[in-house]
Amino acid sequence: MEDLERIGQQAKKAEAVLRTLSRGRKDAALNRAADRLDESEEQLLSANEKDRMAALEKGMSQGLLDRLTLTRERIRSMSQGLRDVAALDDPVGEVTGMKRRPNGLLIGQKRVPLGVVGIIYEARPNVTADAFGLCFKAGNAVILKGGSDAAHSNAAIVSVLRSALAEENLPPEAVCLLTGDRSQTTRFMKMNEYVDVLIPRGGASLIRTVVQESTVPVIETGTGNCHIYVDESADLAMAVEIVYNAKTQRIGVCNACESLVVHEAIAESFLPMLAARLAEKNVELRGDKQARAVLNTIREAAEEDWGREYLDYILSIKTVRDISEAIAHINRYNTGHSEAILTSDYANANRFLEEIDAAAVYVNASTRFTDGGEFGFGAEIGISTQKLHARGPMGLRELTSTKYIIYGDGQIRP
Amino acid sequence: MEDLERIGQQAKKAEAVLRTLSRGRKDAALNRAADRLDESEEQLLSANEKDRMAALEKGMSQGLLDRLTLTRERIRSMSQGLRDVAALDDPVGEVTGMKRRPNGLLIGQKRVPLGVVGIIYEARPNVTADAFGLCFKAGNAVILKGGSDAAHSNAAIVSVLRSALAEENLPPEAVCLLTGDRSQTTRFMKMNEYVDVLIPRGGASLIRTVVQESTVPVIETGTGNCHIYVDESADLAMAVEIVYNAKTQRIGVCNACESLVVHEAIAESFLPMLAARLAEKNVELRGDKQARAVLNTIREAAEEDWGREYLDYILSIKTVRDISEAIAHINRYNTGHSEAILTSDYANANRFLEEIDAAAVYVNASTRFTDGGEFGFGAEIGISTQKLHARGPMGLRELTSTKYIIYGDGQIRP
Repeated sequence: MEDLERIGQQAKKAEAVLRTLSRGRKDAALNRAADRLDESEEQLLSANEKDRMAALEKGMSQGLLDRLTLTRERIRSMSQGLRDVAALDDPVGEVTGMKRRPNGLLIGQKRVPLGVVGIIYEARPNVTADAFGLCFKAGNAVILKGGSDAAHSNAAIVSVLRSALAEENLPPEAVCLLTGDRSQTTRFMKMNEYVDVLIPRGGASLIRTVVQESTVPVIETGTGNCHIYVDESADLAMAVEIVYNAKTQRIGVCNACESLVVHEAIAESFLPMLAARLAEKNVELRGDKQARAVLNTIREAAEEDWGREYLDYILSIKTVRDISEAIAHINRYNTGHSEAILTSDYANANRFLEEIDAAAVYVNASTRFTDGGEFGFGAEIGISTQKLHARGPMGLRELTSTKYIIYGDGQIRP
Repeated sequence: MEDLERIGQQAKKAEAVLRTLSRGRKDAALNRAADRLDESEEQLLSANEKDRMAALEKGMSQGLLDRLTLTRERIRSMSQGLRDVAALDDPVGEVTGMKRRPNGLLIGQKRVPLGVVGIIYEARPNVTADAFGLCFKAGNAVILKGGSDAAHSNAAIVSVLRSALAEENLPPEAVCLLTGDRSQTTRFMKMNEYVDVLIPRGGASLIRTVVQESTVPVIETGTGNCHIYVDESADLAMAVEIVYNAKTQRIGVCNACESLVVHEAIAESFLPMLAARLAEKNVELRGDKQARAVLNTIREAAEEDWGREYLDYILSIKTVRDISEAIAHINRYNTGHSEAILTSDYANANRFLEEIDAAAVYVNASTRFTDGGEFGFGAEIGISTQKLHARGPMGLRELTSTKYIIYGDGQIRP
């Protein structure tokens, strides 16, 4: 308990220094941290090797093991990530909406850091450097709780980052790493006095746990049951390529397409074209009755298929009578991530953009673009699927808050 | 349980209608609700009389009884509140930052309603109409949980609002009232499936309970331990009037001044002037050693005084060596609400604005201006003292979220 309390106090103290730090000093520290990571390659690889050995021994799956593994290339990509963040504009300090009130008060809103950001994530050591870089550039101290399977790797990375901060005469406590057990994490999620926001990064169950247990404000990131609705008027050749891309370009990501919604008038012409293209990647199709009337060898979609985020080579297919049914179906089953309509109809495009309730709504494009890099933010800390504070890809700006600044010359309230 | 589930479903359904409602229809409904409140005066007063009788019987304090009481004038002020909100700009639908990406995608951010807003508040029936008006204008359905002492009053008000909505062919479930017991409220705070945000309005203990128990995202409003720092270079006559205003103009509010921080170099000249003025309202002063050396009859401030929100005719006084000590003291004890510096020094004014961590930071003005009306927002749902989503007075804009809208012409991710 004392340990955690001390970490909270240290992070809070570091935050007060970071709050007013110039861009120049922040960028210098990020670049120095990048250099130090590069120079510490051997030491990082050997720490990672310890984690890998332990993971192999306990029989970790290939996928998780891959995420845990550091290579020379991945270390270079971590350090390059820090340099990229250094090159981004500093969001802190911008003043917007400054207006003079009738009583002469001049009131504006200034962008400021959030304060202390907590990140809870799985055994992916690259997140350690990434999360630090983004939080730091936005003027925040960060407390990291990484998966315990990456304990040696994370400790090594944080130690490198901290010594780079110290070399720049900055408080090393700007990045803190929790190394305690589960009960420490539980207490961490209730440290409202020291932590301004928690961002869980990982699978659905990690995120659920943080949402359920935390009293600190949480930004929910994550799960995407993304739909593409192919309207009656869609360009079918374009539609085949977009669905193929959104389903198969990368399957394990939250912005991949999981469900196709198709207008019944084109089901007969479109579905066979699409099925042929998806067969190249052996995508399993699961359809409703009407879809199966066209593609008669495919499996029947059960009710639970409509709500599934497969993260796999599987696509559910729902046929609808019209765009109203499509919108109702999507708004019922989606997870508020990314949804697309493929259409050449002006009114339908507008209606879909207006009525679909999701972080990102597309016309005639793949859902795979929901990403901080693709949106032009340079980097992202995650994709928010909730509506408070930030919705969609979160860049540096979303790691800040605001405060009102008010210039007076003696005003009192009558 | 079923009841609460049904209310959640109904609110969600109503929200889907409100989401795309034109400003004209929203304003018409607000104005009709205002008319109906005026016409229902007798019925509202007699419902309120039942609540008042029960409250008197159980010996409710005068202050609480006053907040519970409806009068003809207060009903007119409720209906006028709805008309005022109808006259405000609709925040929904604005698109900002639309930019063309190198691949041709056109990406913008559109302002949309939050969805379903939950308000938990004390026995103040006027909040029922106010909260509905603001949430509705921003396109949200609202679920209200008012203090049980106002049960009859709230039921009567909500019934009037609902019939006005029905007359406008809008779903009455756009405003729902919870009438269950405490266990219902506890379950309500965990209805993440149906409720997008909870806003507690009331005293510190109500807010603490909601923050602790809720899994739905909460916007914390409220407590203000506000400081005024009188710098060495302050105009002392101006300072007397600002402190007098911030302390005494209204004592029971969150933006009232609770603590004075004064530069030691002017303590001897300033404190007697201020004490004389505050004596007009019999303000009790509690000072540190140096303050008591000047004002030798005042009580000594204990450590717990620095953190107290008195909401009373009491002011604590802390003397400091310089602005650094003032900033450190304020950042240690404040609640992130409103803080002011009184100074004629350019560098000190800027430094205070930069380094103080609070929702509103003032130079040479009373902290009493932290208010949606005074900031020009027309109305407010509360003053956020947290950093996520909204900080400071929350108007219609803070009752909205955003979504990304993306126009493509066949883009796929390479």
